This record gives sequence, structure tokens and C-alpha cells, in this order.
Amino acid sequence: MSADFPRSTALLTDRYELTMLDAALRDGTAQRRCVFELFGRRLPGGRRFGVVAGTGRLLSLIRDFRFGDDELRYLRDEKVVDAATVAFLEGYRFTGSITGYREGELYFPGSPILTVEGTFAEAVLLETLALSVLNHDSAVATAAARMSIAAGDRPLAEMGSRRAGESSAVAAARAAYIAGFGATSNLEAGRTWGVPTMGTAAHSWTLLHDTEEDAFRAQVASLGVGTTLLVDTYDIRTGVDTAIRVAGTGLGGVRIDSGDLPTVAATVREQLDGLGATGTRITVTSDLDEYAIAALAASPVDAYGVGTSVVTGSGTPTAGMVYKLVARQDSAGGWVAVAKASTDKGSRGGRKAAFRTLERGTATSELIAVSDGFEELDAAASHPDARALQSVLMQAGDPDAAHEGPRGVEAAREHHAMVREELPVRALALSRSDPAIPTRFVEAGGA
Amino acid sequence: MSADFPRSTALLTDRYELTMLDAALRDGTAQRRCVFELFGRRLPGGRRFGVVAGTGRLLSLIRDFRFGDDELRYLRDEKVVDAATVAFLEGYRFTGSITGYREGELYFPGSPILTVEGTFAEAVLLETLALSVLNHDSAVATAAARMSIAAGDRPLAEMGSRRAGESSAVAAARAAYIAGFGATSNLEAGRTWGVPTMGTAAHSWTLLHDTEEDAFRAQVASLGVGTTLLVDTYDIRTGVDTAIRVAGTGLGGVRIDSGDLPTVAATVREQLDGLGATGTRITVTSDLDEYAIAALAASPVDAYGVGTSVVTGSGTPTAGMVYKLVARQDSAGGWVAVAKASTDKGSRGGRKAAFRTLERGTATSELIAVSDGFEELDAAASHPDARALQSVLMQAGDPDAAHEGPRGVEAAREHHAMVREELPVRALALSRSDPAIPTRFVEAGGA
Repeated sequence: MSADFPRSTALLTDRYELTMLDAALRDGTAQRRCVFELFGRRLPGGRRFGVVAGTGRLLSLIRDFRFGDDELRYLRDEKVVDAATVAFLEGYRFTGSITGYREGELYFPGSPILTVEGTFAEAVLLETLALSVLNHDSAVATAAARMSIAAGDRPLAEMGSRRAGESSAVAAARAAYIAGFGATSNLEAGRTWGVPTMGTAAHSWTLLHDTEEDAFRAQVASLGVGTTLLVDTYDIRTGVDTAIRVAGTGLGGVRIDSGDLPTVAATVREQLDGLGATGTRITVTSDLDEYAIAALAASPVDAYGVGTSVVTGSGTPTAGMVYKLVARQDSAGGWVAVAKASTDKGSRGGRKAAFRTLERGTATSELIAVSDGFEELDAAASHPDARALQSVLMQAGDPDAAHEGPRGVEAAREHHAMVREELPVRALALSRSDPAIPTRFVEAGGA
Repeated sequence: MSADFPRSTALLTDRYELTMLDAALRDGTAQRRCVFELFGRRLPGGRRFGVVAGTGRLLSLIRDFRFGDDELRYLRDEKVVDAATVAFLEGYRFTGSITGYREGELYFPGSPILTVEGTFAEAVLLETLALSVLNHDSAVATAAARMSIAAGDRPLAEMGSRRAGESSAVAAARAAYIAGFGATSNLEAGRTWGVPTMGTAAHSWTLLHDTEEDAFRAQVASLGVGTTLLVDTYDIRTGVDTAIRVAGTGLGGVRIDSGDLPTVAATVREQLDGLGATGTRITVTSDLDEYAIAALAASPVDAYGVGTSVVTGSGTPTAGMVYKLVARQDSAGGWVAVAKASTDKGSRGGRKAAFRTLERGTATSELIAVSDGFEELDAAASHPDARALQSVLMQAGDPDAAHEGPRGVEAAREHHAMVREELPVRALALSRSDPAIPTRFVEAGGA
């Protein structure tokens, strides 16, 4: 247990949530029932679709969002809140409900990815944590899905832990797996989330030994001839020769981590075939992103390892989602839709119900029914050809266990693979563009 | 305590480190003493200098890098390593030494930011964790330093937690503080690292109330007239009028989170002055980065709040540092310098000693003395005008406590402020460029 890992998730939040709570307990608005919505105003980076990830992690983190002695002492000592608020927080537990998009689902501008309902007091506190998790994980999953599309049937492994904060690295491995990667180098992602792990040796392994041959012999002795040998520490041609001499033509694979990959891959394939190692696979791992992967489609590459670009969202490290109050009770107990008015950051008030309309199995729009106030939305009934996008994720503060842990990860990965099939062909291109399908807002009951 | 936070830091690593250990224990190379070096080949993003951050966090994480029953069970069940390696890991504790740049120090291409010495077995396992921490935190600190330079004497607050993974958000707040920010919104960073926290209210606070005036009255009742009121939920002009009517001309500040900031700031300043609120400060918080901050230099802005751009490294979310074996013992016990040969990713073998040469207090070069093998470097003596850049950070596995916890953060912040004064003027420009000072490698004892 490290000093770096918080003892509770309750302080993974912004101070203003606590000062708002403090003021709301004082003026009585803390008990107003509220609907907060988490959504993205746009798809950053000119992406054609987004992939929701982090939901399963978030549900567990919310359950653990409790204020213990140490948290309360800090808030009291720093005078963040007053004594009445400390007393309230002692018993705090989120007891509201969360509905939203399943993990692995696609999303588009305005999609109501999460809808959090509860009193202002309990729902306002979750803003930062919910956004941290969803913004990070969805950014990674969205980038990963594009790479997975570019790779086609060739396996992809995530190996970018070293280029991400040590805990975000675990979440990134998980998100990439949900969006189509097959494995990760990160052991904690293996233990906590059940993601398959992979990896054999680094350049330091070769440098540790007196000769490259010594290093290869020791690796094969330990991991068998099915292993993958890293052949570019010194000279690639010599490395490949040595690899086959040591392991034989049954060598599982060679890995190349430098050079102009299309050229190098072709040369190495030719060399391997010439040596009779026609079944030895070529894995490439040098500075790949979705564009580099696509550019290797015609090269004799068997597998890709992706580092920096996937864990940093390939140029879009955050999904840029926001968490906004969209409806609340007034002083008389009636429901009102609310929204910020500013022109550049305005949002649409009212509770939403979301559907993906399909034609012959292909998505045609993100249809979002908006209620005037808070009445239940039954727009689903009027859209028989549309798939409802929201499920109940948490009720009375209890997460649906199907979304948690390794089981939730597998379910999310399967769901993602399924819904990706609904994307129109234009969604699969890598270039910057508008969203692949339009978002259509309709008044509830209408359309 | 969440399922999401690992029980130990030992699996925050890549599988190949464990498979290399496994093979090295088998062939006897595990006990060879090694020198690994952590450095950046370049400054990504055309930065003119880099800022080292994360060191204090890393030292604590390394101390906690132990394999408990749960870690060992996972490694055994997944067949990552064999029984002999599991037995070795049961007693594992890093007992080597780490020397390196102090946290807050500047760095340049090739700077030996960390030098890790120990057996191959103990030093190889730290690769991923060391890189995760240093790459993330240094990327944030480097971006933060540029923003701090752009802001000049105006205070800067970090408020980007929602745009970063929930644990990376804490590390980002810490790194930004070291590099010149004055506060953060993140409460965990306050508790764990002693970073001052700030924040008053979000748009949801105004939307929760029946009127903006109700919201302002409640906030002032709770936080006093010295508070900062968010005035752009509906109409800014009306918001400012209401704010002063409610709080009086002694209102501490107003915050603007949308619109064309130079225009809006000037208009709001004029309005506040016209109302007699000449001491009311203006804080702006909308999509700021170092360029936007610089563009506001002539505007009547009193403080900046920066979110996304600082926590994502303002376009450079990872510092791209690497961890390479640079020297090791051979089978006879002698020391040899080692290096990968590939043209695009080659590195320089041998242990390094680093100095910053200065002329009249201004840095002129990063001077790096390279030993042929492993003998102690005393190049310091031959460079009387140079500041030695490396300190002992960990000895026999024990961190120097001065670098840990909130005390380490304060020391790093002070050190950064001091060494930034040594930068030549050209280092302060924001445009993309070469590093502000050249890196010069010399043979040890020479130069």
C-alpha cells in the first residue's frame, strides 16, 4: 500500500463540490432532487464515433466513495466545510440511481452517457470522479477502436504503461482491451481486470549478456522456441540469423522495435523465409498509431504492439465530457429543466432518453428524446426500429454487479464488438470528419 | 479502498520484466550488477526545456514495491514465472541505489535524470514504474512551467482533474504546483501532498436555485463576500450586476468560464469599476493554455484557472523518457558500457555525471561526462563553474526522506523556482524550438 494511493475515493474530487454542498446544506437546496447528465458536446479530434469506457470502474469507485476519519479530518482542518457538513459527510453514501450507456457502447455528440439522479447533495459530489474516469477511459477506448479497425484481423497488444501515469496505465490497458486490443503488457490490468498479458524481453536483456546469442539461448531455454526474440539491438540481419540458428525454424516470432517498418518487415520476412522459418511471425512495436498501422496493411506483419499513442488517446488524451445539471425540483417540489445559457458552452436541459436508429442493421442516427420536465420518457415505444441505449447501472447506490470486475470487462468487450458492426462504412475511415451519424433531438413523445 | 487501487505497486509493471527476471535467474545473469539510466532522447513538442517531476512519488512507490501473497498467486496462476522466481520475489526488495536530478530540476536531451544501480534482478523490475511516474509527471510539470512563465505574477490554479484519470489527476496537481502553479482544485492533492486547494461553485450551483440571485446570496452567506462568484451561467452583464448587488463592492472576485476572454474581461472590468467594485478580481477559466494565457497578458485579468491543457501536458501528454541499461558487469566481474545500436533509437553507453555550466548565473550548457566503464566520475572537480545536477536519492533501498511527502513537494517547488532563474531569456519563449541550451557529452576526466 503506497502513500500515493488514496485511502478512499472520496477526495478524488474538486473542492468546489464540497463548498457547494456546504452552502446547499445551509440554504436547504441540498435536498432538492436533481438529474445530472454526463455527455460530450462534440467528438474531439475529428473522430467519427466515440467509445464509452470506464463505466464498470466508476460504479465500484462510487460505491467506495465514503468519507472516513482521515478524509473528514482533512476537510475540517482545512476549513473546506463546516461542522454541519462534516456531520452530513460522516453518513454519506450515494443512494441515488445511475442509468446510462453500457461500457463498450458507441457515443456521439450529446449522447446521455450517464444520467445521475439523487439529491443535489449526493449527486453533486460525483462530478469530478465520474468525469475523470469516463474522460480518460473513453479517450483511450476511442483511439484503441480506430487502431483495432486499422489492424483488421491482426492481433494488437497494448504496451504503453510507461507512457501513462502508473494507475491510468492500468485503466488504459483495460479500455484498450474493451475496444478490440487482444492483450496488454500491464500485469496489474491482468490481475485486476482479467486482461490477457504478454511480453518476453527488452533490449536490456540482450545488453545484459556478453553476446546476443547468449541472450537468445537463455530466453529460449526459459520461454521455449515459441517465444518472440527481439532482433534489433545491434544489426537486424545478424539478429535474425542468430535467432533462427539458436531457436531453429520453429521460432515463434521476432520483434522489431526500430527502423522504417514497411522496409524492415519486408526484408526480415524474406530473410526468415529464406532460412526456412516460414512460420515465424513478425511483431512490430515502434511508435505505432492508427495511421502507421493502416500503412502497414500490405506489409508482412503478423502482430502490432502499440504504446504511447493508445494510452494517450492518439492526440486526444481526454474525451472532453461534461457533467451538467439538466433537471431539478423547484421550491414547490415540481420538476424544471435547467441549462446554462452561454453561447459557446450551452447545454440542453431536461432528462433524455437515447436510441440508435438502424436501417437494415446499420446505424442511421442517435435519436435523443428530451422531456420538458421530468416525466418518464417512453419514446422507445414510438421507435420500434431503434435500439434503446440506456440501462440501469446503479439503483439505490448499488451497482449492477454485471458491470463490475473482469466479468464486466468481458461483457463490455463483447458489447463493443457487436455494436461496432452497426457502424456505417464511412465511420471506419481514419481521417478527421464529422460524426458518422447525426444526433437528432426530439421532444419526448413526438418524432 | 477501491478494487481499482492495487494492493501493492509491484504489478504496476510490464510482463516482460518478470519473464526476463525468470530467464536471468535461470542462466545466472540475474546477479550481474547493472546501471540503468532514465533519460529523454529529446524534448517532445519543441519544448525549450523540460522539468523533472515525480521523483518524490517514485521513491515511495519503489519502497512499496513488494510482492505479497496476492501478487505471487497471480504470477504463479498465470504462469508468468516459475517456482524459483516466485521464491525469489517473495523476498524481493530493491536494495540498490538511485542517484539523479532533484525534483523540480530542469532537464535537456540526454540528461541522466535517474541512475539506478543494483543487480539486474532488482533494477530491471523498476523500469515501467519509474517511467510511468516520471513521464507523466514531467510532461505535466513542463507544460505547467510554460504556463507559469506566461502568467507572470498572476496566480494560476490547476483545475483539470476531470480531464485526467482519477489518480493521475492527483499527480498532475502535484506536478503543476512544483512547476509554479499556486493551487489546485483537487482535494486529494491537498491531503496527500499539501498542495493548497481552491474552488467555490460550478454552474450547477446557479442552476440548482430558482434564480441566480438566490444562488449568489446562498454562496455569500456560506463563504463570505471574499468569495468568487461564477457570473456566466445566463447573461454575464446581469450576472455581474447581481453579484455586486448581493455581495457589495467588497466582493472578492468573479469568475468567467466562457466567451472571448479578452473582450469579456475588459467589459467586465469596466462594469465592475463602474459599479465601484474596483477591488473585485477577475478570474478566467475557459480552455486556457500557455498561448491563451500569454494572449491575455494585456487584459484586466487577475488570476487564471487552467484545466485540460495542463493535466494533458498541453499537447505533449508524455515526456517520452526511456530506461536503458548503460553499464553492467561481465562474466569476469569487470564493468562494460553497453548501448543499443539502432540508428533511430540508439543510446550512449556508460555511466554519466551531469553538470550545468553557467556564465554569470545563466545556464550555457548541459555537460555530461561519460565514463568508459564504471569508475567513479570526478569530472565535477574539473568544472568549477558548473553546478552538479545529481544527488543521492535512495541508498540500499532507503529513500532520502527529504524528497518524500509534502515536504519533498515544497522543496521541489523551491528548487524549481531557483533553477528556472538560470534559464537564458530565449528559453522563456513559447514557440517550438531547439532546446535552450546544448547538451555536451565529454569523456570522463576530459573536457
